Amino acid sequence: MIVLFTDFGSSGPYVGQLHAVLAQQAPGTTVIDLFHDLPRHDIRAAAYLLPAYTRDLPPGTVHVCVVDPGVGGERRALLVKADHRWYVGPDNGLFHILARRARELECHEILWRPARLSASFHGRDLFAPVAAQRARSLMPDCVPATLTAPMPDWPADLPQVLYIDHFGNAITGLRSDRLPRDASLQIGSATLARARTYSETKAGEGFWYENANGLVEIAVNQGRASAEYRIAVGDPVRVS
Amino acid sequence: MIVLFTDFGSSGPYVGQLHAVLAQQAPGTTVIDLFHDLPRHDIRAAAYLLPAYTRDLPPGTVHVCVVDPGVGGERRALLVKADHRWYVGPDNGLFHILARRARELECHEILWRPARLSASFHGRDLFAPVAAQRARSLMPDCVPATLTAPMPDWPADLPQVLYIDHFGNAITGLRSDRLPRDASLQIGSATLARARTYSETKAGEGFWYENANGLVEIAVNQGRASAEYRIAVGDPVRVS
Amino acid sequence: MIVLFTDFGSSGPYVGQLHAVLAQQAPGTTVIDLFHDLPRHDIRAAAYLLPAYTRDLPPGTVHVCVVDPGVGGERRALLVKADHRWYVGPDNGLFHILARRARELECHEILWRPARLSASFHGRDLFAPVAAQRARSLMPDCVPATLTAPMPDWPADLPQVLYIDHFGNAITGLRSDRLPRDASLQIGSATLARARTYSETKAGEGFWYENANGLVEIAVNQGRASAEYRIAVGDPVRVS
Repeated sequence: MIVLFTDFGSSGPYVGQLHAVLAQQAPGTTVIDLFHDLPRHDIRAAAYLLPAYTRDLPPGTVHVCVVDPGVGGERRALLVKADHRWYVGPDNGLFHILARRARELECHEILWRPARLSASFHGRDLFAPVAAQRARSLMPDCVPATLTAPMPDWPADLPQVLYIDHFGNAITGLRSDRLPRDASLQIGSATLARARTYSETKAGEGFWYENANGLVEIAVNQGRASAEYRIAVGDPVRVS
Repeated sequence: MIVLFTDFGSSGPYVGQLHAVLAQQAPGTTVIDLFHDLPRHDIRAAAYLLPAYTRDLPPGTVHVCVVDPGVGGERRALLVKADHRWYVGPDNGLFHILARRARELECHEILWRPARLSASFHGRDLFAPVAAQRARSLMPDCVPATLTAPMPDWPADLPQVLYIDHFGNAITGLRSDRLPRDASLQIGSATLARARTYSETKAGEGFWYENANGLVEIAVNQGRASAEYRIAVGDPVRVS
Repeated sequence: MIVLFTDFGSSGPYVGQLHAVLAQQAPGTTVIDLFHDLPRHDIRAAAYLLPAYTRDLPPGTVHVCVVDPGVGGERRALLVKADHRWYVGPDNGLFHILARRARELECHEILWRPARLSASFHGRDLFAPVAAQRARSLMPDCVPATLTAPMPDWPADLPQVLYIDHFGNAITGLRSDRLPRDASLQIGSATLARARTYSETKAGEGFWYENANGLVEIAVNQGRASAEYRIAVGDPVRVS
């Protein structure tokens, strides 16, 4: 299985062009559109979402990960193996949290280059073809590498809003199993208690809960938390 | 074939997570994204759209239907067979219009539960796996059931706007073959006559027509009906 | 491979309905969503995007192309073969630039009609089934044809914005290899020089470059060109 994790947007031609390459170079492989509306060019937000949203995928899954504002510049291309899954993408911090949490880690710099490499679309021209090779159990030309810039100031969990979903819920970079069950969460001027599920709360009530991928998420029963509390991606949250 | 019919939104991770489960549990089955932007939490709108937009799908099609504001609460999970097609989803009214119009109906309460069931994402953890089982001709653990709350106040056809499409057309809950061809439709302060097709009308002219799924739809030739008549989902329409 | 190129929008039921038809009528064929948010009803913009965004697809690819404001009227349905790829869609100008640039061209009017043809959704009822037939190496009932209305006033390259992508970049109808490398581009009151890639420019700097499909594209490093220069689809650009 190949899984796509990008900030390309859900519309426009880019996602389709990835699929077209994969269909040609790894025919018969299932390709999953996991995320295409990651916050644009926000490497850090994507880095904290990546391990949460890929933790349950089967061993051998190959991920094409593209949040790549430095495309066309000097940054290296990586092929990372973390706990039996493969990840292809730029060496810009995107894999740092994944790597930090992995029990087993292998990291390769990709030396292989396609016959034609555009300056602006390495997702299509480089990362997808490498993913197709891995999906067919081929190994592109690589050398052992380490992740550059270990981002020592990136905390274990990120107390920030990383994504606002279609329902107006705000997904944070905090893992719920790291918080006491009676923790309160502050966002803007609101203080929210934990609930296990929507049906434990009243209509219009705000709360935080462990979402289906283990992250702390802020919601309002029958409402939109993003509108109610004027939440935007990047907003800080505070645990107390 | 497995068909997805949800209010999850076209972006974000939820649709991809359904696909990932289905690819693992029903490998080789085609999965179709029919609707992911059903009006959020609007069970009734979805209930009237469901039979219209699935009526032409082949026998044996399995539908994963998720408009489920009560997820995590007491509502039951259903597996419904209507006229040789299968439907999996919550027992909250979503299947009422489908059931009412079906010539043959079987209804099961799903007792089967996965090893791990999140409180907030039964689409991924419960409904998709049940659909995968049906697609593989397996029957999950079930008991015969009836739909709760037969919604006696829900009319045979719903004189309301259920969905506004990308072109600004307003799809209603009225079946066109129930209306006389010379019926007028009132929406807001406008009164619209029927046309067979766009090319029967002049540029800028508003009209109603039988859409490609048998529902009454309001359109403006070379314009956006939703903007022209300030139509929103839920607005009433009147037949005269 | 079947490739979809439409203005149906990325949400709503229409794309899924195309997929459902293709899954039934050409089972096992990969279907790629290339473009579903082409500017609505803008035949000319789509005509200039089509050859650029399909030039790298493999021989034998079948394209379903639907920008079709005249659906249900008199316009003919076409099956075009251009340089070993097939294109199905309306005879309204959509294939004119493709045809003009093709080294080899065959053009057929489609006489075949399905048992049931809706007045408003020929994409689903006519074009997709024809594409499915071609994908299975069947030839629907056709007669030789020429494209109507050769659009003599459509230039070789269109100095206009055709599409604004998720990053706010503006894609034009100019082929980059037709411009001198030192050409300046004017959009609104701004004058932009060429860069090879983002990393050649400073944060906040605007420039034009050859995008990954050979078209001139306007971008701002770490910014949104569409907002910076207030660009909308249809805006003229000037080369100097």
